[in-house]
Amino acid sequence: MKAALYLGRESISMRDCVSVPPGPAQVQLRVSHCGLCGTDLHIFHGKMDHRVRTPQVIGHEMSGVIEAVGGNTDSWKPGDRVTVRPLDPCGHCPACLAGHSHICMNLKFIGIDSPGAMQTLWTVPAHTLHRLPSNLSFETGALIEPLSVACHDVRLAELKPGEFAVVQGGGPIGMLIALVARHAGARVLISEVNPFRLKLAHELGFEAVDPHDTDLVARVNSETGGAGADVVFEVSGVPAAAEMMTRLPRTRGRIVIVAIYPQPAPVTLFQFFWRELKLIGTRVYEPQDFEQAIALAASGTLPLDRIITRVLPLESLASGFYDMERGGEVMKVLVRCS
Amino acid sequence: MKAALYLGRESISMRDCVSVPPGPAQVQLRVSHCGLCGTDLHIFHGKMDHRVRTPQVIGHEMSGVIEAVGGNTDSWKPGDRVTVRPLDPCGHCPACLAGHSHICMNLKFIGIDSPGAMQTLWTVPAHTLHRLPSNLSFETGALIEPLSVACHDVRLAELKPGEFAVVQGGGPIGMLIALVARHAGARVLISEVNPFRLKLAHELGFEAVDPHDTDLVARVNSETGGAGADVVFEVSGVPAAAEMMTRLPRTRGRIVIVAIYPQPAPVTLFQFFWRELKLIGTRVYEPQDFEQAIALAASGTLPLDRIITRVLPLESLASGFYDMERGGEVMKVLVRCS
Repeated sequence: MKAALYLGRESISMRDCVSVPPGPAQVQLRVSHCGLCGTDLHIFHGKMDHRVRTPQVIGHEMSGVIEAVGGNTDSWKPGDRVTVRPLDPCGHCPACLAGHSHICMNLKFIGIDSPGAMQTLWTVPAHTLHRLPSNLSFETGALIEPLSVACHDVRLAELKPGEFAVVQGGGPIGMLIALVARHAGARVLISEVNPFRLKLAHELGFEAVDPHDTDLVARVNSETGGAGADVVFEVSGVPAAAEMMTRLPRTRGRIVIVAIYPQPAPVTLFQFFWRELKLIGTRVYEPQDFEQAIALAASGTLPLDRIITRVLPLESLASGFYDMERGGEVMKVLVRCS
Repeated sequence: MKAALYLGRESISMRDCVSVPPGPAQVQLRVSHCGLCGTDLHIFHGKMDHRVRTPQVIGHEMSGVIEAVGGNTDSWKPGDRVTVRPLDPCGHCPACLAGHSHICMNLKFIGIDSPGAMQTLWTVPAHTLHRLPSNLSFETGALIEPLSVACHDVRLAELKPGEFAVVQGGGPIGMLIALVARHAGARVLISEVNPFRLKLAHELGFEAVDPHDTDLVARVNSETGGAGADVVFEVSGVPAAAEMMTRLPRTRGRIVIVAIYPQPAPVTLFQFFWRELKLIGTRVYEPQDFEQAIALAASGTLPLDRIITRVLPLESLASGFYDMERGGEVMKVLVRCS
């Protein structure tokens, strides 16, 4: 079977590999599609070489079919359509014992810390599986993982119908958060600088502005009767947005940190005091977020196909990364793995 | 009657003034004691001259007795022992309409934006009054306002019995938070650099360390089985503490911002993502916090008298500010106003 191996900075090699048979409590999947994530791009850039052991198959946003099952996997059988929640917690650290195993202190992220989905046959623990309904295409199925991130973020924001939400950053995760937030009944304003993404946001029916052209604080205040936003989702990860995020919320408003900031950023802590703001950190997802994402996707109410800009053969993986790197006219890129 | 007037930077003048008779829905108080707050020191330093109109009587941590009542003050009569919740909200801004009038967007803080308590006779809106039980001394009564801050902070932290709390900064507010948190059933560790305050913390039965001498992260981890603190109260307001505050909490732990940061501070936003932390901004208090503070103080279970280091005549107000400015062996300074 074929596999795309990450060998080191900007080096991907297609290899013919021997598949791993499923052991106890494992299943072997025939991978259909796999999405390229910002973290995968980060790996491709060599920035996670301290963590990723090479050669390594990466990828964790996938859809596929069970090819074979190991022992103790009674609820699964070959032919089942599935996606994977790529988290392998230790089960015994303080976070796991407190019920937060999705952010286990020794978490293995499958596709980063162990082999990922960018191969034809992929063997994973059965506890990671979620069933995909038959009406969900494999392309959309590969979006379930990032859609689960969005469901998790909106859930932790405790977003209520009628609330006003600002999404800072209209890339794939930001756009999915906007879709989930709107579905939850919120009014959504997207702040984004990329014209392609702004246009897409408008086409999807969102209010969306470039914060370089629009006074975002004035816009939010005018749309909320001077109160401010109920929730700000900070998905962009740039210091200017960390500065802006505290200027938008109402008194007792919430800021949800979705972006991964590599460096400490200057934050106006005064504003947390002044308006009694809350900052809520969010990371990955819990099983209920996957279930919600699958139900939402299967309901057909979200225009998820519009998030996918390109579907490439696995052999063209590197060109997908270069697409993402260039930015411009790109949202989610998928690769076909079989 | 006498009044201490703030005239401008480091300039206080004692004057013989005409008292203001209480109008409708107002009462006139004979002020017994008034505490000196960090904000008062800030005013004394001239740093709030953009906001404080001179000459101005300042002060807002007080105890006293009703001298006279205006109309529509049926629940109050001369001789009643009281303290004042010094907040005068507008009643019609979005924050007030949302039920957060304590952080009204047009809030007048009595004693900053209008005359304060450092005078013999003080006229205030009757809606600001809270009754002091007869067993509560006027000296302790002057601590009700800062104790209400502590009650508010602990309440918004949603602190639960058995939780482990770190208080960064062992000045008057930090020490009161530590006392309220311990009373709520938490284990408390105080981080403080001033030897006098560390000694006081130890005498009050707290674990307390100087973060320059002790590896705070290691200490917290060793006391919590490697999990981290449930709650961190950041009361110190220094950038080093803003850096430290994100390193101490457990997964899904809470950081409560009590300090007033004049400048944006570098914050490790990554850690909010990594451990799904929450940052909770807190400001002043709500009526229920005053009621809790009064009940706690009246119960006699908190060693509040140990927080008071000096009681001066009103005429020596400036020397009280210089005491605070020098730091060293000082916690709360009170002035006697009549």
